[in-house]
Amino acid sequence: MKLYEKVAEELSQQISQGYYQVGTKLPSIRCLSKNHSISISTAQEAYRLLEDQGIVEVKPKSGYYVRQQNSPPKLPEISRPIQRPIDVSQWHQVLDLLTSHNRHGEDLITLGRALPDYHTATLQPLLRTMASLTRDVDNLGRSQEELNGLEALRVQIARQMMHSSCQLHPDDIIITNSCQEALSISIRVTTKPGDVVAVDSPSFYGTMQTLRSLQLKVLEIPTHPETGISIEALELALEQWPITAVQVTPSCNNPLGYTMPDNRKKQLYQLAQRFDIAIIEDDIFGDLSYNTPRSNTIKSFDQDGRVILCSSFSKTIAPGFRLGWAAPGRYCDLVTHMKYVSSGCTATVPQLALADFMAQGGYERHLRKMRQQYKQSRDIMLGWLKRYLPENIRTSYPQGGFLLWIELPEMIDSVELNTRLALQNVQIAPGILFSATGKYRNCIRINYSGEPSARQETAIKKIGDEIFKMLDELETNK
Amino acid sequence: MKLYEKVAEELSQQISQGYYQVGTKLPSIRCLSKNHSISISTAQEAYRLLEDQGIVEVKPKSGYYVRQQNSPPKLPEISRPIQRPIDVSQWHQVLDLLTSHNRHGEDLITLGRALPDYHTATLQPLLRTMASLTRDVDNLGRSQEELNGLEALRVQIARQMMHSSCQLHPDDIIITNSCQEALSISIRVTTKPGDVVAVDSPSFYGTMQTLRSLQLKVLEIPTHPETGISIEALELALEQWPITAVQVTPSCNNPLGYTMPDNRKKQLYQLAQRFDIAIIEDDIFGDLSYNTPRSNTIKSFDQDGRVILCSSFSKTIAPGFRLGWAAPGRYCDLVTHMKYVSSGCTATVPQLALADFMAQGGYERHLRKMRQQYKQSRDIMLGWLKRYLPENIRTSYPQGGFLLWIELPEMIDSVELNTRLALQNVQIAPGILFSATGKYRNCIRINYSGEPSARQETAIKKIGDEIFKMLDELETNK
Repeated sequence: MKLYEKVAEELSQQISQGYYQVGTKLPSIRCLSKNHSISISTAQEAYRLLEDQGIVEVKPKSGYYVRQQNSPPKLPEISRPIQRPIDVSQWHQVLDLLTSHNRHGEDLITLGRALPDYHTATLQPLLRTMASLTRDVDNLGRSQEELNGLEALRVQIARQMMHSSCQLHPDDIIITNSCQEALSISIRVTTKPGDVVAVDSPSFYGTMQTLRSLQLKVLEIPTHPETGISIEALELALEQWPITAVQVTPSCNNPLGYTMPDNRKKQLYQLAQRFDIAIIEDDIFGDLSYNTPRSNTIKSFDQDGRVILCSSFSKTIAPGFRLGWAAPGRYCDLVTHMKYVSSGCTATVPQLALADFMAQGGYERHLRKMRQQYKQSRDIMLGWLKRYLPENIRTSYPQGGFLLWIELPEMIDSVELNTRLALQNVQIAPGILFSATGKYRNCIRINYSGEPSARQETAIKKIGDEIFKMLDELETNK
Repeated sequence: MKLYEKVAEELSQQISQGYYQVGTKLPSIRCLSKNHSISISTAQEAYRLLEDQGIVEVKPKSGYYVRQQNSPPKLPEISRPIQRPIDVSQWHQVLDLLTSHNRHGEDLITLGRALPDYHTATLQPLLRTMASLTRDVDNLGRSQEELNGLEALRVQIARQMMHSSCQLHPDDIIITNSCQEALSISIRVTTKPGDVVAVDSPSFYGTMQTLRSLQLKVLEIPTHPETGISIEALELALEQWPITAVQVTPSCNNPLGYTMPDNRKKQLYQLAQRFDIAIIEDDIFGDLSYNTPRSNTIKSFDQDGRVILCSSFSKTIAPGFRLGWAAPGRYCDLVTHMKYVSSGCTATVPQLALADFMAQGGYERHLRKMRQQYKQSRDIMLGWLKRYLPENIRTSYPQGGFLLWIELPEMIDSVELNTRLALQNVQIAPGILFSATGKYRNCIRINYSGEPSARQETAIKKIGDEIFKMLDELETNK
């Protein structure tokens, strides 16, 4: 943590402990500098950060005052997707999101992608180990030794998952190329073409495209922005439709950022048990929960192996790292076979390096840093949205990760918004990607993983300006 | 090339040019040492190599003589698999092959796996580049830029494939995690569950397990050990069965080592055109052809995009490298979608390093070295087989790669042979893996990728001894 961040956090704590009341004047910059033995510019930076976080406000020619605290934003309503199984569409929009960087080049601010911040010193030990392992040619052969991935890494993953109350044996874990491969394989072994799979809604587009590729039908279940998939709605759906599996992202959800309370996770598991269906649990953002200890996984309640837990290090470390894993429970043999036919073994060097990084405590240190950074960035981002977007928007209030869901006024078409913003080098993810039928057209998902900067603030301002412009045009054309 | 290898090659050429006739005495070691200005021990090593290759023989107290040349071995007959579509079995035997190293540890001589020799100086530049790229954290993010793989690498692959008369545009190529992923995706986009796929026979078990995972039926086509899949038998099959695709490995075949003549490849393509089916061409060993320029790919005859060419660098560089690719022709959009759902993007650093290695000519230098090494090892291996195995065996005569197929006396059960050999730390691949129905029970596949050593020779001797023992036991139990 930098010095100004430390000072800001100290002040922030004093405010939240009531040491300074709302509306009170705070120490002057000169005073702060003297009290903490820091430079004037460091004191200024500390206040600037607190201002960005919406904790203090500046009154010209007077000084800094405690501001009315950022209350949690106004959340979207529970979602209301179509209540019947449907085919997934939207591939071309997903492709557009995935390839827009190629067309726009370096200048594009990619708020639409779920890319983490990997420009951090806490990853340096990992890179050093990986570079040194790469020089040993023997490591190029080792992948062939263990079809399910190197044991050293599986041991570390099993340990890590104890934070989510999950008791996994290293042999319960299969290493994959990315969480996407883990999810894809899990869906393949639990379904057959034509089956119906229930999902939370809005839902990650990668999984839905997997359902599409397998000719599966998707049933989108109403989902609450704080408690997740509606158990009640799912129960009704299970009574009505021949559902084979349910796929959810219950911790630090993508795109809504919620974490299902443990008791709801348990209820979901019991429901799956009652109707004898599989649960495919995507936990890719789970390690980035702002609350520690992090919440349980559904897998932690699993007594009969019906839950396949899937995750990776693409969001916690870096997207190019390409290491995921699955804990497939009773489907272990099927997943081993499917992993073999899907891509054979997994590259060795990243596995060796990551196992070492985790064993040395480097991963936990890195997670601590990122959780704090993302939480801080969330508050700054919510402040910007308040400042630059129309008042009547609703946004998610993420409890982990780095993704924010924004519900715009109903008449705004976010695909059109994205096209207009692309001309200004800003990219967002239109809401329709997160529904099988192109629902959520007035919603967008943005990320706040990058450290807050003037460049990002400008991007948010551009989004706001464009929305106001579209609203004006709609008003005129009425 | 080492000095003794150079001297041996020179002598070998003089022999093949008729300068020394069969039965002629060759220069003494002292004489050779003087003529070539080499040490006595180098001259001895040169003769030892020629002896191993079966080119010269030593007569005690007399000297070295030109031996009756190693004629190509007695080849197996054309295969005669069951002529109807069937389900693939044998997964547990494949799993056993893939995991036996775990149970036996370092001492196991794994002749059963198709692992290349990656302990070679020609790979050092690649490893150095990769290590240095790893240190730059920016490279961990770059994979997300290009869904189909980095353009720099696709350019190099397109160039490389020109050796096989293939005109590919970099945009025709999609990078994958291994050839297995390329094959798996290719089969998925050209078939639907229940379809029939024709394959050469014996055939690579990885592809057959993919067919199994997709609930496809396999039709094994009679295959000639020199000219490959029988066009005539395939034509008959196409008239009789609703075949959707044909999957073949026509260059440096696994396990038979043949390369289909170009005109047969063209005929195969024309047949596919006539019956409007897709061809999935596995070219993973193609770059290791002993004859240069290498033969055409079937893809080089492709006029309407029905051929999907699949390959990787797992056999030419190292198994842990995990970079493959597909050139999917008319199936390009489908393959892009399937690759995305299968594992998302592909790791960046290996792609960047490989593109550089290829651009600098390092890959071509490495291939030249490996082709020569493997060809030399083939001849030594054939010599050992002559020496240690029963006379009435038949073996393939590989034209590239490093795999040898051995047809043992009909009563020998190679699964049993493998079990017995495992107790002596030798592993082979039983023939049943290469058939959907467990045919080829009296065949084995071994590799000769490692540089010939006393350890390997001992392994071959153990195989021979065990076979003789089994034959004796069978004789006794009659």
